[in-house]
Amino acid sequence: MRATLFRRCSSTLPPTIRQLLAPSVTSELSQHSTRSEQDANVTVTGWVKSIRRQKRVSFAVISDGTNSAGLQAVFPNPSLVPKELTNGASVKLTGRLGKSPAAGQDKELLVEDIRILGNCNPEEYPIQKQALSNEFLRDNVHLRARTSAIASMLRLRHALQRELSSHFEQQGFLHVHTPLLTSNDAEGAGETFKLAKTFDKSTPDAQVPPPSPSDPDEFFGRPAHLTVSAQLHLEAFQTALNRVWTLSPAFRAERSQTNRHLSEFWMLEAEWGDLPIGSDAGVRGICAFVEGMLRASVKSLLVAPGTREDMDVSWGISTDDKAEMKRKRREELERAIYNKERWKIMTYGDAVLTLQEEYERQSREDASRFEFEPTWGKSLQSEHEKWLAEVFVGGPVFVTDYPIDLKPFYMRLNDPDGDRQTVACFDLLVPGVGELVGGSVREEREAVLLRRMKESGLWNEVDGLGEYEWYMDLRRYGGSPHVGFGMGFERLVSWVGGIENVRECVPMPRWAGRLSL
Amino acid sequence: MRATLFRRCSSTLPPTIRQLLAPSVTSELSQHSTRSEQDANVTVTGWVKSIRRQKRVSFAVISDGTNSAGLQAVFPNPSLVPKELTNGASVKLTGRLGKSPAAGQDKELLVEDIRILGNCNPEEYPIQKQALSNEFLRDNVHLRARTSAIASMLRLRHALQRELSSHFEQQGFLHVHTPLLTSNDAEGAGETFKLAKTFDKSTPDAQVPPPSPSDPDEFFGRPAHLTVSAQLHLEAFQTALNRVWTLSPAFRAERSQTNRHLSEFWMLEAEWGDLPIGSDAGVRGICAFVEGMLRASVKSLLVAPGTREDMDVSWGISTDDKAEMKRKRREELERAIYNKERWKIMTYGDAVLTLQEEYERQSREDASRFEFEPTWGKSLQSEHEKWLAEVFVGGPVFVTDYPIDLKPFYMRLNDPDGDRQTVACFDLLVPGVGELVGGSVREEREAVLLRRMKESGLWNEVDGLGEYEWYMDLRRYGGSPHVGFGMGFERLVSWVGGIENVRECVPMPRWAGRLSL
Repeated sequence: MRATLFRRCSSTLPPTIRQLLAPSVTSELSQHSTRSEQDANVTVTGWVKSIRRQKRVSFAVISDGTNSAGLQAVFPNPSLVPKELTNGASVKLTGRLGKSPAAGQDKELLVEDIRILGNCNPEEYPIQKQALSNEFLRDNVHLRARTSAIASMLRLRHALQRELSSHFEQQGFLHVHTPLLTSNDAEGAGETFKLAKTFDKSTPDAQVPPPSPSDPDEFFGRPAHLTVSAQLHLEAFQTALNRVWTLSPAFRAERSQTNRHLSEFWMLEAEWGDLPIGSDAGVRGICAFVEGMLRASVKSLLVAPGTREDMDVSWGISTDDKAEMKRKRREELERAIYNKERWKIMTYGDAVLTLQEEYERQSREDASRFEFEPTWGKSLQSEHEKWLAEVFVGGPVFVTDYPIDLKPFYMRLNDPDGDRQTVACFDLLVPGVGELVGGSVREEREAVLLRRMKESGLWNEVDGLGEYEWYMDLRRYGGSPHVGFGMGFERLVSWVGGIENVRECVPMPRWAGRLSL
Repeated sequence: MRATLFRRCSSTLPPTIRQLLAPSVTSELSQHSTRSEQDANVTVTGWVKSIRRQKRVSFAVISDGTNSAGLQAVFPNPSLVPKELTNGASVKLTGRLGKSPAAGQDKELLVEDIRILGNCNPEEYPIQKQALSNEFLRDNVHLRARTSAIASMLRLRHALQRELSSHFEQQGFLHVHTPLLTSNDAEGAGETFKLAKTFDKSTPDAQVPPPSPSDPDEFFGRPAHLTVSAQLHLEAFQTALNRVWTLSPAFRAERSQTNRHLSEFWMLEAEWGDLPIGSDAGVRGICAFVEGMLRASVKSLLVAPGTREDMDVSWGISTDDKAEMKRKRREELERAIYNKERWKIMTYGDAVLTLQEEYERQSREDASRFEFEPTWGKSLQSEHEKWLAEVFVGGPVFVTDYPIDLKPFYMRLNDPDGDRQTVACFDLLVPGVGELVGGSVREEREAVLLRRMKESGLWNEVDGLGEYEWYMDLRRYGGSPHVGFGMGFERLVSWVGGIENVRECVPMPRWAGRLSL
């Protein structure tokens, strides 16, 4: 028999630097140490972040990407340190992990054996020690995870995803992978990317599908778009599994160049049918859930030593003139997470009144002014949202019950207040970012929803059937009151990490005119 | 001040049926019960799965999507049960959760109050009690999560994702969101989808980006494709953070109609730089890691009561003539996970010899024959892969060291064996699915890699720079030996759930000619 069995060997990888430096691991390793009660024999693989050669001893910081500080390596015999040990080189070091006499670190590695796994010519290496501009790093996006700023962001992003997943798990939600390719054209909001009809290569495949019904030039027999939101699809799962969520890519062919828009981004979306125990009905109940989710997830980042250090890195990157503002913002973030006092909540109507008072004050005092006059029925401008969160509240604020014309068809109609018609929705505004989360009660009443779709120009009938007939089915067959929200994941990373531009909140950013790799 | 504070209220949702039926929760609830030591007052929201009206008592099974069995509801006064309580209707029931006298369930709900939240006309409801064909449910994909088969699959999928995430976390990996839009044209493998140059809507946006360098008609200034694999991008993160993985959508404009291909699917991919402690070097080390990952993740599904029941549902769905085969397959799966004996491993060369012997035996005995004669240098056909896993081994089998011409440029060249040139790679074949995982040692030697790219026709130079110059950079600057693999997530669901077609392993399947919703 030619198939052999594996010999028994471990399927577990060696400990990472983060695992080695964790207090419990170090003490466990020392128990088996042959050298002393303090030291443990370890092997570490990583990249050289910095090196300091001295006459009697040399030092290097080695990173394997698992923590922000790396590991301090001490070379007691500098003459044995090869010249290839340069910034960016990949190395494998073996030695004794022991208590460090230096300040700022508990442990250091006393190196006994050095192997260079990959050279890095310091003359040519683009990732130099001095500060590199964001723009330079976007041009070298394949190398930028080697900077401490991007590496810390990636660890924060990972931790946020993990903590959010864990929160949804505890709350009984099911994670569902909603589709990226869709026949929906954006639910009428924003621009969508469309797939090309033909592809570059000929397809000499014998099993070509039968000619498609509506358009034989289309791969799918009909036009295909990239999704702008998972919500409608997620609602189909809500009517079967109640509590569902997803963290999924979404796409907008958005040409504006702002610090909070990307063409490809990740959205966390959730839909469910019951509100927190004892909470206010409707929108306030959703807001309570969202606040609970953000407090729980961000708090675990604030208390864990690893992510806390990553936040020190990402918050610490700023020009001098912004340092004071960043210090204030980070305090606001921690207050929002730790304070017992619940987050502020106000209606859109009250927000407009408040903004109008501020606008009048600015006019009277000739202070720096809003560019746009706040008016009931018009969108809150970015400057308005920022003022509300950053100046008026100094922290997160929920703004609820927007006018019907500003929001999509699927948000539930409130009872009219005079001639003002609003929907049961909210935006969560946070300092430095603006809109972080948007959500609503969904319109569950079949007749109201159909009217709203027709008013929005989305009800195109073919052969007597509407394009969104399937979405109406969700109401016809056991559809019941439910709620949901969407959160831009890069904006969350921006808020938690104090990172100014969402282009630095995603591993490889894409925006109009830019698609590297 | 118009912003108000929330009143203190919970941000926690009420318990789900799964949470209510968990042993610890039920006993905890009973402590606070005002009725008896056994019973607890609870409210449950869900959908009616079945109803049985009798003279003196009525019964219904209520599902909220969190478990396969649902909750048995008992109505002691049938005259008070409204006629709207029909299959598919959404209901809110309040009553006492207590021990059930019936077999097959621990608890039941003695209903005291009934609220109908959403009607469902049983005459029109497409999801009827009798078995529905896969094809009918694909046509009604927005409703199919209401069937027990698809709901169980979605819970298995969720659990697999959770357990794999937890395994990678323990092993020190970082989850990275690799981009979906890419300028790479498929690394020369398979067909890619391309974005259309123009979009449907005019973009009257003031902030239009500057004219793009190479193609002003393209949104990104250059052609954009949907990714077929995250691997090359993931390698860029590997050279900074060492252990990285992703679970990401991927796309293939694949026209063939098989039971294991989708146009949009999810791939788990991982790259890292060190092998398990004490493992064989190279490919065998990766195989040991992959086996450990699958054993750990699937085992936790096999031992958890909830997912075990979901597997009973998904494995139980078969026509009579396939029941025996399915029973055997499920035994093979459990044996592969539980048995101490490690999985089989064989080289491609030995696999071909074995297949040739079988081919000759079939010819001699005039048995049912392979359609294709096994030949060194040619791809293993699907029939060959299935025979190896299902007949020869009866379980998972790693096939390693394929000929160079059958595999992509990035796989590491082995030392030549005579005139046979192979690469350091593997495919993991499992019964019922065929190829589940594919991986390799990556070619880290700059000169060899460049030669391989040129031979593969991928090195198109513009202004003296190759299209994959960035990928070469990863080797130039501290690149070191590393390995990786990719696993089709739907194929994993298919293997673990005993589901015949991957179209039933993803929430909303897309394939050539078909794009619903």
